Amino acid sequence: MSGDSLGKLFKISNWGESHGKAIGVVIEGCPPLFELSEKDIQFDLDRRLPGQSEVTTPRKELDKVEILSGVFNGRTTGAPISLIIFNKDFKKEDYKEISKIFRPSHSDFTYEKKYGIRDPFGGGRASARLTAGNVAAGAIAKKILKNKFGTDIIAYVKKIKDIEIDIDPDSVSKRGVESNIVRCPNNKIADQMINLIKKAQADGDSLGGVIECIAKNVPAGLGEPIFDKLDADLAKAMMAINATKGFEIGSGFEGVKLYGSQHNDPFYIKGKKILTKTNNSGGVQGGISNGMPIVFRVAFKPTSTIQKNQQSVDSKGKEIELEAKGRHDPCVLPRAVPIVEGMAALVLCDHYLRFRAQCGENGN
Amino acid sequence: MSGDSLGKLFKISNWGESHGKAIGVVIEGCPPLFELSEKDIQFDLDRRLPGQSEVTTPRKELDKVEILSGVFNGRTTGAPISLIIFNKDFKKEDYKEISKIFRPSHSDFTYEKKYGIRDPFGGGRASARLTAGNVAAGAIAKKILKNKFGTDIIAYVKKIKDIEIDIDPDSVSKRGVESNIVRCPNNKIADQMINLIKKAQADGDSLGGVIECIAKNVPAGLGEPIFDKLDADLAKAMMAINATKGFEIGSGFEGVKLYGSQHNDPFYIKGKKILTKTNNSGGVQGGISNGMPIVFRVAFKPTSTIQKNQQSVDSKGKEIELEAKGRHDPCVLPRAVPIVEGMAALVLCDHYLRFRAQCGENGN
Amino acid sequence: MSGDSLGKLFKISNWGESHGKAIGVVIEGCPPLFELSEKDIQFDLDRRLPGQSEVTTPRKELDKVEILSGVFNGRTTGAPISLIIFNKDFKKEDYKEISKIFRPSHSDFTYEKKYGIRDPFGGGRASARLTAGNVAAGAIAKKILKNKFGTDIIAYVKKIKDIEIDIDPDSVSKRGVESNIVRCPNNKIADQMINLIKKAQADGDSLGGVIECIAKNVPAGLGEPIFDKLDADLAKAMMAINATKGFEIGSGFEGVKLYGSQHNDPFYIKGKKILTKTNNSGGVQGGISNGMPIVFRVAFKPTSTIQKNQQSVDSKGKEIELEAKGRHDPCVLPRAVPIVEGMAALVLCDHYLRFRAQCGENGN
Amino acid sequence: MSGDSLGKLFKISNWGESHGKAIGVVIEGCPPLFELSEKDIQFDLDRRLPGQSEVTTPRKELDKVEILSGVFNGRTTGAPISLIIFNKDFKKEDYKEISKIFRPSHSDFTYEKKYGIRDPFGGGRASARLTAGNVAAGAIAKKILKNKFGTDIIAYVKKIKDIEIDIDPDSVSKRGVESNIVRCPNNKIADQMINLIKKAQADGDSLGGVIECIAKNVPAGLGEPIFDKLDADLAKAMMAINATKGFEIGSGFEGVKLYGSQHNDPFYIKGKKILTKTNNSGGVQGGISNGMPIVFRVAFKPTSTIQKNQQSVDSKGKEIELEAKGRHDPCVLPRAVPIVEGMAALVLCDHYLRFRAQCGENGN
Repeated sequence: MSGDSLGKLFKISNWGESHGKAIGVVIEGCPPLFELSEKDIQFDLDRRLPGQSEVTTPRKELDKVEILSGVFNGRTTGAPISLIIFNKDFKKEDYKEISKIFRPSHSDFTYEKKYGIRDPFGGGRASARLTAGNVAAGAIAKKILKNKFGTDIIAYVKKIKDIEIDIDPDSVSKRGVESNIVRCPNNKIADQMINLIKKAQADGDSLGGVIECIAKNVPAGLGEPIFDKLDADLAKAMMAINATKGFEIGSGFEGVKLYGSQHNDPFYIKGKKILTKTNNSGGVQGGISNGMPIVFRVAFKPTSTIQKNQQSVDSKGKEIELEAKGRHDPCVLPRAVPIVEGMAALVLCDHYLRFRAQCGENGN
Repeated sequence: MSGDSLGKLFKISNWGESHGKAIGVVIEGCPPLFELSEKDIQFDLDRRLPGQSEVTTPRKELDKVEILSGVFNGRTTGAPISLIIFNKDFKKEDYKEISKIFRPSHSDFTYEKKYGIRDPFGGGRASARLTAGNVAAGAIAKKILKNKFGTDIIAYVKKIKDIEIDIDPDSVSKRGVESNIVRCPNNKIADQMINLIKKAQADGDSLGGVIECIAKNVPAGLGEPIFDKLDADLAKAMMAINATKGFEIGSGFEGVKLYGSQHNDPFYIKGKKILTKTNNSGGVQGGISNGMPIVFRVAFKPTSTIQKNQQSVDSKGKEIELEAKGRHDPCVLPRAVPIVEGMAALVLCDHYLRFRAQCGENGN
Repeated sequence: MSGDSLGKLFKISNWGESHGKAIGVVIEGCPPLFELSEKDIQFDLDRRLPGQSEVTTPRKELDKVEILSGVFNGRTTGAPISLIIFNKDFKKEDYKEISKIFRPSHSDFTYEKKYGIRDPFGGGRASARLTAGNVAAGAIAKKILKNKFGTDIIAYVKKIKDIEIDIDPDSVSKRGVESNIVRCPNNKIADQMINLIKKAQADGDSLGGVIECIAKNVPAGLGEPIFDKLDADLAKAMMAINATKGFEIGSGFEGVKLYGSQHNDPFYIKGKKILTKTNNSGGVQGGISNGMPIVFRVAFKPTSTIQKNQQSVDSKGKEIELEAKGRHDPCVLPRAVPIVEGMAALVLCDHYLRFRAQCGENGN
Repeated sequence: MSGDSLGKLFKISNWGESHGKAIGVVIEGCPPLFELSEKDIQFDLDRRLPGQSEVTTPRKELDKVEILSGVFNGRTTGAPISLIIFNKDFKKEDYKEISKIFRPSHSDFTYEKKYGIRDPFGGGRASARLTAGNVAAGAIAKKILKNKFGTDIIAYVKKIKDIEIDIDPDSVSKRGVESNIVRCPNNKIADQMINLIKKAQADGDSLGGVIECIAKNVPAGLGEPIFDKLDADLAKAMMAINATKGFEIGSGFEGVKLYGSQHNDPFYIKGKKILTKTNNSGGVQGGISNGMPIVFRVAFKPTSTIQKNQQSVDSKGKEIELEAKGRHDPCVLPRAVPIVEGMAALVLCDHYLRFRAQCGENGN
């Protein structure tokens, strides 16, 4: 059973390979009568674009999205929305010699073991290029949430290697995130990060880090225990992004050091709303959003593609020395920011429709 | 859309409330012709049992499982397996006074917001008691994986508050884990943990921690990119367990501090097998198992139920002082060990069937 | 992938075997805050009961349903509703000798081929006894539809062998259906049917027929093209009932004899509603309900169990003469009436929730 | 929840509108290592093509399919297969004046009621043009079944209005079906049908009929009771085709006139195989294929589009006289033959993968 679909009611099916003719996504379940055009989608795609700055891969793609179906006279019809992005800058020869080599910590080996075949060009189906479709679909989900609830989803680079900002997620603005090429909402720390990335790039090496994400104005009631908890589905969506190694929400792994009496979030009343004084829960309690901001973090490993010689094996089971060539991102985090936002939006939008189906009469 | 089912081919549907007549689980998709009896299931249920030691809640349940369907003459028939556990020790009056109060960091508030109604007794549907059904189903999944591949899934308490063991997961044995009541495979550290728990209990407070889990002898090829990656589905399953706040696999959040050249796992040949020298990948690459041990960690927050007065609000929107009563677990981690194992087994077994469906001819 | 669940948002998982300890069904997705008790369910179960009249099998079951979860203080909570019916009158010895024989037109052979094992007692998993769970779940769906839209679903026996009533479905009342033991809303024709059944029973033979079903006050807009059309999902649900061989809606197979100009249903205005003058569409156009009554028919083959000697083979591949014993229904149609109604209600209720999820803002 | 996907393991997601830029389908779950090119698909698309003969609509489309993903070096990779067909001959102005009119027995009214919006050009999402994607996907499923089991799926026109052939399905060849433009495997009857269609066309009227389909060399064991029975899933797939009003398998609606002793299919041994002497079951018993040919029939209503004036209402609720214009098929059955075959193949292929997942070890 193929795992190329995500979501139950707001559902996307992603298709394509890094160097195929095109990549795309089909969105099923989008509510009708909703204004939508390519412009709504292109902004986030551009944030994900390769070659956008000196800290990303030099591969050049324009990633121009086309809506092929599901929109009539500028409004959604309830029919599936088919989005397509034609590939431009693919140089099949670049990757030829490594087509029989299993690059360390890539998925060459596991795809070969699983399917007995793989498209080796640019990582084929396993390429992070495929996230473009998810970002495009996520942009639609974002717009729905924004229009319906005023929801804002803001991700940003919190940490590169060991350089980290300590910031109140609630204080981060979209403008702050976009104010530098590394997408860290503190220009001074961002400069340090940029220098670190440039140095790693010069060394033919790569870096990882942590992206933090906040979703504000999420209505209470989203999430479907006991398995499809909101945080469980967010965790899955984030761990489905290429190169991620961890997910935590609210207090996360650090929270285990607290006593329950310190960790519990006391309720209080503000106006007519029930809020919590702290937000160790990260906006989710018992798997359901509680109306507080949703705050989570995602760990990205250092990019597997490096420009150093590495020990490996080939598809015939022979040990070899791999001389890496081709283009690479020294650090994927700046481009991963819209991916994290988009995946979060997809999860939230799906749960909004699920809420509506089962609990729609409960006046939320 | 209710989120009470987990898995696509090996699928469980969990039902019941903490203090209802019974709880249970229906397992769909279990292969036929597989030997199965209640004995195969009871062992793990007993490890999850409340009241099993001085560091757990005093609630007494026997959690005796009955197989109601799907097994004929000691073998599975391919039909759904219905498991039931009748509830015994429920004292509905215990919880009466808090039925209108939203306990901090519990799900009282969010269930009320979502559904407009909730069963307040013992946490109702949100109780960790419901994990018993998952443990029971997980025991079946474990047995299938063990018989088919020799897979061993071993979880253990790695950290309580700030007391942590540093251990090679590969060296941990089931016997080691069960050698003390806290389920930490180092009796000296375990003693420190036990003392810490007892002290917290005496103070009416609670503790969190980290469980680590290793799955050995998992065949390469499990996991369905690009969304249903093995690590993504493990993350979801773990984050669906009550009180979890984080998931990481392999190098996890610490791995972001490494350079790519340090983090990549070099392939080498041992006999006829392709292995990796390090296992920063945690046994999963590109969302697919690579044959190395799968190693992941789960963060559990300190239990929300404490025996201290807390500030809160009631369902009428009035601020109140909550005097906590009732039974509580000062630290859920020892009992959560079989839950983590069971959920991991459910995910692996589901992906084994999914592999078989799509790639079954690929001689894996 | 097991096929024991039906529905996407209002979903049931059916479990059990004819002669096991119990049978049951878990309902996921039922909206919360809905009044529900065993009484709401028992009525339809009693209509399906074996041994209810002289034209049904003498097997005696009380089919007393218990709600084990999902209801608190008489109202649904949004949690799964687990229904259980304990089996009483199972005589395992009755069926022993045929456990190695493939009865003609039963599923003994196909279950054996598929699973390599089967519970032979009373037909095991393949028994029509399992429809009791579906009828129970269907009773809940019926109540939801009735309360929300005033929907009435009325099925009745239209034909036994070649005795058929010609009746306007719109004129049939529940009382009329229940006015005789064969559930044909015309007592004179019903008497002929009863005589025919008695005669077949005396001959050790069996009869088939056609059930017609009308659903009135179904809102327009239910059904999800292009695959999950309302009539497609009704067809599937009906063909999933034991012994069915055909489904048709509106004009059905007879309608192919008309010209388009005769078959088209002209629209007209009545008050503020848009209605059609004829209803060849059977209340569904383009896979979506149009607000007119939904009318469909289901063909049931003559029961496979007969009291005559038959030629067959055994599980060792030897040709044998089968001497049929055991209890049998000479004609399942009278008891199948509540099954057809219940399955139809499940489909409609599922589609109502699906409508609510995707098109809920469209003021229907 | 959108209903634009079909199948669970071999799953298609269909997108597009009649007069949009393109239509397409994404196939998930196709096994890897399977030879595939556009040529394998084009043949059936051409059989479905509008304008192919004097008895079909004059709309001209070439329906040239492109594979955009999932195939590498001529073999499937296990990744989703994206198929696209660009639309050519769409004249948006043709349909303009009827965009506010509800055509009788079309889905204009129900789409408007459900979604509050619709693409009116050429029927938009409700157009039978969308079946092209299903035929394309079905061609792949057919090839898989053919290669794996030698399965042949042959559909043909059995009846137009009241002209019917009486033929043993087992005797029908693909060549026979294609020997005339009406796809009835009897040229004499075919001529009568063609004359009838031409006359209806000249009168501006339309005709319905029945397609019969046989699938030979289907392995025993396909179908997943108790709901996803093979015949139930076939029924759903057929009723999801535009203009269908009924489905029956084996003896169907006529079979209800038989006694059980006449209807039961006696088993016998031929060589080492267990066969049945008659095939009233239509190759499916208890929802599972029994190895005998699968035989079913589908009723198609007369096309709703006619060239006669009709009474109707407009979207403002006013009664109007509709003057039909535009192109129309006087009888869809000849072009529906590959649709029926393709949909049947999709169902069978899905069930083959489902069998493999759950019962793969049972040596079938």
